[in-house]
Amino acid sequence: MAVYTHLGAEELAALIAHYDVGELVSAKGIAEGVSNSNWLIETTGSASSGDRFILTMYERRIELTDLPYFLGLLDHLSAKGCPVPRTIHDRNGAAFRMLDGKAVALIEFLPGVSPTQPTPEQARAVGWTLAQMHLASGDFGMGRANTMGFGENLAVLEACGKAGLASINPELPATVDAARAAAALELSALPQAQIHADLFPDNVLMLGDQVTGMIDFYFACTGAMALDLATTHAAWSFDSNNAYDAAVGTALLEGYEELRTLSSEERALLPEIAKGACLRFVASRAEDWLDTPDDALVTRKDPMQFVSRWHFYDKAGAKLFAS
Amino acid sequence: MAVYTHLGAEELAALIAHYDVGELVSAKGIAEGVSNSNWLIETTGSASSGDRFILTMYERRIELTDLPYFLGLLDHLSAKGCPVPRTIHDRNGAAFRMLDGKAVALIEFLPGVSPTQPTPEQARAVGWTLAQMHLASGDFGMGRANTMGFGENLAVLEACGKAGLASINPELPATVDAARAAAALELSALPQAQIHADLFPDNVLMLGDQVTGMIDFYFACTGAMALDLATTHAAWSFDSNNAYDAAVGTALLEGYEELRTLSSEERALLPEIAKGACLRFVASRAEDWLDTPDDALVTRKDPMQFVSRWHFYDKAGAKLFAS
Repeated sequence: MAVYTHLGAEELAALIAHYDVGELVSAKGIAEGVSNSNWLIETTGSASSGDRFILTMYERRIELTDLPYFLGLLDHLSAKGCPVPRTIHDRNGAAFRMLDGKAVALIEFLPGVSPTQPTPEQARAVGWTLAQMHLASGDFGMGRANTMGFGENLAVLEACGKAGLASINPELPATVDAARAAAALELSALPQAQIHADLFPDNVLMLGDQVTGMIDFYFACTGAMALDLATTHAAWSFDSNNAYDAAVGTALLEGYEELRTLSSEERALLPEIAKGACLRFVASRAEDWLDTPDDALVTRKDPMQFVSRWHFYDKAGAKLFAS
Repeated sequence: MAVYTHLGAEELAALIAHYDVGELVSAKGIAEGVSNSNWLIETTGSASSGDRFILTMYERRIELTDLPYFLGLLDHLSAKGCPVPRTIHDRNGAAFRMLDGKAVALIEFLPGVSPTQPTPEQARAVGWTLAQMHLASGDFGMGRANTMGFGENLAVLEACGKAGLASINPELPATVDAARAAAALELSALPQAQIHADLFPDNVLMLGDQVTGMIDFYFACTGAMALDLATTHAAWSFDSNNAYDAAVGTALLEGYEELRTLSSEERALLPEIAKGACLRFVASRAEDWLDTPDDALVTRKDPMQFVSRWHFYDKAGAKLFAS
């Protein structure tokens, strides 16, 4: 949540001039994105462009060679009618430009706000939109390996070390064995697509029960659709006390299956995949926790939130996802 | 530059419902304000309201008892045609509301971007608009004492201590004596108005050479108009190498005097007032510097920038502002 780079009005105006979007009218640095700087930009607009945009500057974590995939996927899905922002290309057709040695992209602004406590109807719409995205990605010409797969999660937890994990919480070292079991799961035989892989409520814009935007595709990759669904389920279906909300979880699945029916193999594996998805957030949060000094101004996310969700899926087992 | 408080979509929608502005469409936390949290809000709008707003939550430094002055001044100046954002009042007519124990206000959104390297024509427009504001404030019914006056600056520097100041830069302890001289200046006999008192380029929105907004009135107070002009001059007239830009400084003064001619007493005191204005930023930056750990993520502003400007005004003397 930060703007890492200061861009002056003159620099922004010069950048905007490379796009057919009219003149700069307003620019506000916005507090979104953990590895990017973002500005909400307003221009006088052009016939083809609209007049509001998100300008993203890629600060870290993003490989430049991945940008054509991320931005191309947005354009592909948007053209297919999915509620994702399209990339605005510059006058030479480029999807991103370099500025002060960093890549920047101009992306369509979409209305909507992110729900904090999703209702079942909102979850149903999100499930439906996730399936829509999976199906629409079928003829996308590019692919990208998942860099946050179950094997990587295991490696992250092992690198934290059992002592390091125990220093956060005595229950955490046991997650290494759980992550080893998840890493042994074979997902490549399940139906594949381009997946969002990080569809938390923060990354969904809604107006009432309507999804107006899926955003922040910077973990998107080629992978099992069931992994995306399980990740979304783990991210959406727990209330502010971290208790499972069955109405929300069920509606999410039903919404998804309105467009795409799960195979029996996917359904059978969903509990184990959901446990693996929980461990991804345990791993990344534990790593961040150990990397962040106790007295830093940054709020650390508690890895135990997803340990608790792992236990929920472990206990609930197959009956949770039974059709 | 931060959003200190998280407000969920549901909380924001409930807050917005207290105003006649339509339904919430979008909300982005913006990276502006050092003592407030701010959101750029879009709604479906109403006949009287427009559809974009800045929602400000007052986090610290602001006294609640000062809010009627700050917000009332915005409304007064806006009604007089000054380019300042008006306050949107709630359905009961209140200019601010309390949320989670903090005051929040909904303020008109204005277009424009803040210049980083102002041109003379931009400075002329800012000078003109500052005079417009001073004249328009004449019949405003409220007043507020300056809490950052020359006496307070001296107290801040004395509290830093000569050793503390020397730890930042060996030249800084000498500013205590300079601040003592400034504190002895008598400004109360000069023409008074409601003044902005912090009109840095950051706090001015422009489209080309037109001022579209003066914002961030949270240092506004009753005081000498010459103090506001000198502060603005010290904030605008130096280039990126901290060298005086005579064309910008002259244009600012000329623009001001197109609307309001300085008295001979004001003109004679301007160099000393400008030196005092510089010391205000030396004092606040030195205090922040000593309060901020060396390894904090926050960028500290260098007090020496305004020590250098103090020397400029000291050396230039009366001839700088001679008519």
